Amino acid sequence: MVSLEKIGEFGLIKKITRKTKDINVKVGIGDDAAVIRVGKKLLAITNDALVENVHFSFSQFTPEQVGKKAIEINVSDIAAMGSIPKYAVISLVLRKNVPVEKIKRLYSGIYNAAKKYSIEVIGGNTAKGSQVVIDVTMIGMVKEKELCRRSDAKPNDLIFVSGDLGKSATAFNALKKGKDMPSMLKKAFFEPVAQLEKSRKIAAFANAMEDISDGLASEVKHICEQSSTGAIIFRDNLPISEEVRKAAKRIGKDPADMALYGGEEFELVYTISEKNLDKARGYLVGEITKKKGIRLYSNGKEKVMKRFGFDHFLKV
Amino acid sequence: MVSLEKIGEFGLIKKITRKTKDINVKVGIGDDAAVIRVGKKLLAITNDALVENVHFSFSQFTPEQVGKKAIEINVSDIAAMGSIPKYAVISLVLRKNVPVEKIKRLYSGIYNAAKKYSIEVIGGNTAKGSQVVIDVTMIGMVKEKELCRRSDAKPNDLIFVSGDLGKSATAFNALKKGKDMPSMLKKAFFEPVAQLEKSRKIAAFANAMEDISDGLASEVKHICEQSSTGAIIFRDNLPISEEVRKAAKRIGKDPADMALYGGEEFELVYTISEKNLDKARGYLVGEITKKKGIRLYSNGKEKVMKRFGFDHFLKV
Repeated sequence: MVSLEKIGEFGLIKKITRKTKDINVKVGIGDDAAVIRVGKKLLAITNDALVENVHFSFSQFTPEQVGKKAIEINVSDIAAMGSIPKYAVISLVLRKNVPVEKIKRLYSGIYNAAKKYSIEVIGGNTAKGSQVVIDVTMIGMVKEKELCRRSDAKPNDLIFVSGDLGKSATAFNALKKGKDMPSMLKKAFFEPVAQLEKSRKIAAFANAMEDISDGLASEVKHICEQSSTGAIIFRDNLPISEEVRKAAKRIGKDPADMALYGGEEFELVYTISEKNLDKARGYLVGEITKKKGIRLYSNGKEKVMKRFGFDHFLKV
Repeated sequence: MVSLEKIGEFGLIKKITRKTKDINVKVGIGDDAAVIRVGKKLLAITNDALVENVHFSFSQFTPEQVGKKAIEINVSDIAAMGSIPKYAVISLVLRKNVPVEKIKRLYSGIYNAAKKYSIEVIGGNTAKGSQVVIDVTMIGMVKEKELCRRSDAKPNDLIFVSGDLGKSATAFNALKKGKDMPSMLKKAFFEPVAQLEKSRKIAAFANAMEDISDGLASEVKHICEQSSTGAIIFRDNLPISEEVRKAAKRIGKDPADMALYGGEEFELVYTISEKNLDKARGYLVGEITKKKGIRLYSNGKEKVMKRFGFDHFLKV
């Protein structure tokens, strides 16, 4: 019996999903969001769920934080397409012994986060279950010239990240070890914020773009696979804050590993052609190459990457 | 501690959801689907989930049946708006000990049902959890003149149902008591079929329309609440097949109760003005009245209904 645990999320999805043939589907399965054409408009549609005791527990998160995070992770996917979020549909699975007060606070987290982005909650569904699941489907509008697909990277594009990395992964690992950490790291894990504003500034100039939910190395790999390119990542150039450096060392982790492999990162990684370099924001971390494979450059040496880290199924 | 069990689904949702102010939201929370305006087009968006050991168990359902039902329940909601389904997003929560073979069969049920309706599966998400959840968000296109909202019923409209009632509820109750039943009843429960074709024939002429997922009495109540009307239901006119009559009696249930209160019904209930009577299909079961309240007419007597039955939270 081959179990999910052994196959992992990405392999499984690849095995069982099918390609679409509809000419109105501009982006199908395999990107941060699907994109469909409706009349003259393009709609980006994404879906992400938070599962109790997998992605959060009520002993660590407040209900408001859970609701907020459920919205932010979806806004992050919408932003990664170069799109602007507009509508959300909320599907809740609830245990029968969840106090109504907690559900109200969870909804309050959802609504406050939605309000911040002017997102309208237009519908949803509730069902009974044995663990809480907050499943959000989000719809955004995207302009053709601002659409950033995984498959849009070109050889010689420069790879940028929109902000410093490793905060969420370092916080997650410190938490697992029961170590205390600076409040900015805690905040990155418990109250992450999608980088919609940064996306708005670069979407018209970027080629491929993704949020870094699966870790930088993984996301660069996804881009290269779908763009039929390779890439080189400059390990010594990764933007890492002093707080992450200190906290990572305290728990015996290499800060650069946290930045390279750490998931649940809400910064964006994008590729941009040299001619648009003056429009780039953030930090240069690599380059797209014609030569396939992902190579890591550090301390004057280059090696082909084999490990890309982070699989949601293996996380907890 | 007020628990979900005591409040029930509908009351809770009413308490915590908020009204939308966006002028592009034509139908918000509280109907079978939300409807948004995108350019010159109208999109209907709905969401429904199947939770393991609540809505199905793998000991009773084949994985294909679970996948199929997850699609059909959403097509049913889309059809109830007078809309045509186009796209689906699939969010799966999976236990780690679910064999991959079972997941493939579940997906095969999803894809085969989607194909039947020319629905494109454009995206989705998988997450680990302690029980299987298949959460489907579906998007359809709807024409302004075919849109059938809950709030569109008018006094003196006639109430029709699109087909005979009580099959699914009778099957569910027979199953609970371990009684055998005719295969057409089993099929109604394990392999229900959305009535999209019937919806296509009546959408342009019907006023309010709903699928009967919460039972006929409940759905008529929803229509009346949102249309600010009342209704009278002709209990002796309810279309009930000979198989349901016999099977209901065998398990000590009144067949008319099965037809009135039984949920997970996939037929449509709709209201139509007298001038369109020649366009009506199915069975006349009542009338919309200016006078508020839902009254039940049977055997020459009329009484005000107090019980409307069926709450998903109380079902299992």
